[in-house]
Amino acid sequence: MTQDQQIHPSHSRVETGDLRVPVARVQLTNGETFDRYTTAGPGSDPEVGLPDRRGAWIAGRADTVGYDGRETDLRDNGRAALRRGAARQAWTGTRRAPRRAAAGRTVTQMHYARRGLVTEEMRFVAEREGCDVELVRSELAAGRAIIPANVNHPESEPMIIGRRFLVKINANIGNSAVTSSIAEEVDKLTHAVTWGADTVMDLSTGDDIHTTREWILRNSPVPIGTVPIYQALEKVDGEADKLTWEVFRDTVIEQAEQGVDYMTIHAGVLLRYVPLTADRVTGIVSRGGSIMASWCLAHHQENFLYTHFDELCEIFARYDVSFSLGDGLRPGSVADANDEAQLGELRTLAELTERAWAHDVQVMVEGPGHVPLHLVEENVRLQQEWCHGAPFYTLGPLATDVAPGYDHITSAIGAATIAMHGTAMLCYVTPKEHLGLPDRDDVKTGVITYKLAAHAADVAKGHPGARAWDDALSQARFEFRWHDQFALALDPVTAEAFHDQTLPAENAKTAHFCSMCGPKFCSMRISQDVRDRFGDRAADGMAAKSREFLELGASVYVPPGLLDPAVQSSMAVRTRERS
Amino acid sequence: MTQDQQIHPSHSRVETGDLRVPVARVQLTNGETFDRYTTAGPGSDPEVGLPDRRGAWIAGRADTVGYDGRETDLRDNGRAALRRGAARQAWTGTRRAPRRAAAGRTVTQMHYARRGLVTEEMRFVAEREGCDVELVRSELAAGRAIIPANVNHPESEPMIIGRRFLVKINANIGNSAVTSSIAEEVDKLTHAVTWGADTVMDLSTGDDIHTTREWILRNSPVPIGTVPIYQALEKVDGEADKLTWEVFRDTVIEQAEQGVDYMTIHAGVLLRYVPLTADRVTGIVSRGGSIMASWCLAHHQENFLYTHFDELCEIFARYDVSFSLGDGLRPGSVADANDEAQLGELRTLAELTERAWAHDVQVMVEGPGHVPLHLVEENVRLQQEWCHGAPFYTLGPLATDVAPGYDHITSAIGAATIAMHGTAMLCYVTPKEHLGLPDRDDVKTGVITYKLAAHAADVAKGHPGARAWDDALSQARFEFRWHDQFALALDPVTAEAFHDQTLPAENAKTAHFCSMCGPKFCSMRISQDVRDRFGDRAADGMAAKSREFLELGASVYVPPGLLDPAVQSSMAVRTRERS
Repeated sequence: MTQDQQIHPSHSRVETGDLRVPVARVQLTNGETFDRYTTAGPGSDPEVGLPDRRGAWIAGRADTVGYDGRETDLRDNGRAALRRGAARQAWTGTRRAPRRAAAGRTVTQMHYARRGLVTEEMRFVAEREGCDVELVRSELAAGRAIIPANVNHPESEPMIIGRRFLVKINANIGNSAVTSSIAEEVDKLTHAVTWGADTVMDLSTGDDIHTTREWILRNSPVPIGTVPIYQALEKVDGEADKLTWEVFRDTVIEQAEQGVDYMTIHAGVLLRYVPLTADRVTGIVSRGGSIMASWCLAHHQENFLYTHFDELCEIFARYDVSFSLGDGLRPGSVADANDEAQLGELRTLAELTERAWAHDVQVMVEGPGHVPLHLVEENVRLQQEWCHGAPFYTLGPLATDVAPGYDHITSAIGAATIAMHGTAMLCYVTPKEHLGLPDRDDVKTGVITYKLAAHAADVAKGHPGARAWDDALSQARFEFRWHDQFALALDPVTAEAFHDQTLPAENAKTAHFCSMCGPKFCSMRISQDVRDRFGDRAADGMAAKSREFLELGASVYVPPGLLDPAVQSSMAVRTRERS
Repeated sequence: MTQDQQIHPSHSRVETGDLRVPVARVQLTNGETFDRYTTAGPGSDPEVGLPDRRGAWIAGRADTVGYDGRETDLRDNGRAALRRGAARQAWTGTRRAPRRAAAGRTVTQMHYARRGLVTEEMRFVAEREGCDVELVRSELAAGRAIIPANVNHPESEPMIIGRRFLVKINANIGNSAVTSSIAEEVDKLTHAVTWGADTVMDLSTGDDIHTTREWILRNSPVPIGTVPIYQALEKVDGEADKLTWEVFRDTVIEQAEQGVDYMTIHAGVLLRYVPLTADRVTGIVSRGGSIMASWCLAHHQENFLYTHFDELCEIFARYDVSFSLGDGLRPGSVADANDEAQLGELRTLAELTERAWAHDVQVMVEGPGHVPLHLVEENVRLQQEWCHGAPFYTLGPLATDVAPGYDHITSAIGAATIAMHGTAMLCYVTPKEHLGLPDRDDVKTGVITYKLAAHAADVAKGHPGARAWDDALSQARFEFRWHDQFALALDPVTAEAFHDQTLPAENAKTAHFCSMCGPKFCSMRISQDVRDRFGDRAADGMAAKSREFLELGASVYVPPGLLDPAVQSSMAVRTRERS
């Protein structure tokens, strides 16, 4: 593991069982350990890539075949490569021939689940989630969860997206025509998974798209998603009108052969919905959505992704690529939330979900965007109802438009809320949203912000085990185990650095106070003194005192009738239960 | 106005009407202006203080008298002053004799409102809020809103706290035994109000408490709150056992004469509730709560703030100090949320609310703390029900404990949610929460984070006019008016700086694209092109196309039965309405 991937000296990666399921094990100063779900992967040298983890599992199923694959084309790396007459920074590590389903076979996790087969991928995620593998299989079979796991991305550590499981987060990276290099993007990937990204989307729109994706996939322990229309558009010189099903299809196969685990497909942007956006405050804000809308209007034809959807399903079934049905008409401002354009498209996404399921292809459905807080729940309720429980994957949503520069926060508010109501995966938003491309630090801020939002939702949903983390950290805090408080923090580095800004001395980390109140004023110290004063087993001692006090009627201090008798008696009862 | 107080060159403070009600007027590049609520005040030289704004209003009511006031005591500035034998950094600006109610009079805004009197303070806040003054008066009379406005803080610009009004935010500042100076605290005050703090609490617990507060009050255009038990404890050498009603009473009068507008009083920490905290994960985490719990247990007597509550009301009525009934037993971890200790205390706070109202004294009630998201709404529902609609004032709440260093965010999630359900004021949490004292930058981050949470709640509540701000900013964004997008942002400086990190050139601010997608890929540009292509009046043109398409049955592309007919016809109807 590289230094970068260890977030704190107290953390180590531990793999358990025959499937080598990883956890981050946190060593506490009181001798205990606390295990956390980890996305960091085993670490890789970027030039070499990650080891093949799933290859034997895939081969063992004996339903795929290796083949030569599509010939790469200079055009795959964009117009700059064409101009140069050569691609740059070719992938330096292992090359594997692409695989796809043998003739007549379907190789999706949904297909296996529906036939009652339990794959290693399912067992792996069940161990990771701490749940029964039958829950994994049955949710996959019902379409209420997906395991994005392209047979050509054997480096990935399987994970599951569905409302019965831990809420997941996605981090977007990728270059644009204006900025960044391949090395930077691989670094962002590593940084994102180190801090907790469950999947990463490569949204590159600039040069070297094909090669950048190769480097990312070979180094990614998490599923990689893409929006293939971006690359397809590059192949037609950025002119949406020139897009064709053939160019798109070729791009999808190119990416499926590389190992992309899920692809955003804007097949719900139907010609008849486009005019519904004309009166919006912010029109169409999805790049893919605007490209397809532009194409539909230019040709006055229906969206080719919609008309060729079944062919797309056949391709996806061959590699186990999952659909992320794009919400090309998502609202780009709170004014446009839950309008007819958005909800019309959602109806179509529901229809497409069923069409994909008919091919045993895994599906999640994308959601907004910008939504005022009182309309957030409706988004997930309608999506779950209309799409028969297919996992919802939302971008935020931002609860207000007024805070560019802080949209990781405006969106974390919406994200925690929508996840509590059943959204399965949250696409992060960084502080740079609306303003620029995220750099490495922005990626971390976005990931941490979304991890805390996802965890808040897990706690609110009562997800088994979720609150144990909060309790462990709060216990450490109350017992002045400063080192453990840092080690258990989502971001130990920042927690420790903030503490040290005011009290850098090492002995301040064993002190029974902090800089907020100083030694004499510490509420937690006073509170602990209170416990101590009431005997060895504080709770017993204090409960006894309380009983005594209540038995005396507590009437010296409480004017009769002012305290609700029901509360008083319920308190007495609960106190007894505890003693 | 000092440079510091102007957040962007496009902003200016404008005062209107005979009451000189201020707004921040934002000048847009399209010639329009946008007015925003402002808390920044007219700006002051810290050594001189702010002008007297309310003095004439107070005098005009002819129900207060000036008097000599309590003699200051070296002890008022803490043990260091006693040791030195002298106070430091005496206030350099105007000194006014304290005022209080004339014999037999009550001078609270609630008192006036209940008698049907409309004060200048009420008219001022009605203009500020853009509502009818009768709404202000009737909400004050009912106890559902307060205007914290001590007669000895004539520098303040009145504001209102209540669920029918804009959600407000409070920023905590103050020194501790470990850190900071008077000048730093005044600077934090100015920084806090510049960025939007509606009230500021001075929570100093270190040296020079009295003098620090004097500097803060004389420079504050917003109401100032305190927790007098902190200073009272200093006066008894930090030993809670030695606290007496007399020392506390003297401290309250000292602070009321200085002009403190509201005071947190932990009168709900009753002896019988203390044992209920013994089994908690984090015991008692409120400083005031732990001090009073400690006192109660040491003496085995009821909390003297509770037993002397009516005397406290008489003092508050004389100066128009508002109660902030402290939640000394608030949960300090999600494990402890909504437990019997917390809810027992809330019942007592409800009782105390009615007792204060019997004296015409204004009251708000404090709330938690740490609360998992699914239990947030219950907090405000019970408080509103039990306390008959008295304004709720919550600290966050934090939706999870696992992210020290990011608790401005974990708490903004809870804060936006609780405010949407009716909390009137939110106490900010800074990134340093649990780790250290906030510095100037942390104050700004906390304020901005809470402003966006409060605004998100205003939008969700459908507060009249709230969404206009979002719409103005989104319109600017969609029209590529970059300068206006920055100017309208909650934090224009950060928005512009983030943009400039990727595209610093001035012409990038008039460009019809940004660094996220580059020129060819801009969804908003494509979306605008789509509009343009369909005629001058885009909506009409596109709606006509849509009608035509729908009239053709849309059957070429949609397999019959796949699109819900209700949705299809509703879309057709709405399209007609728009054309």
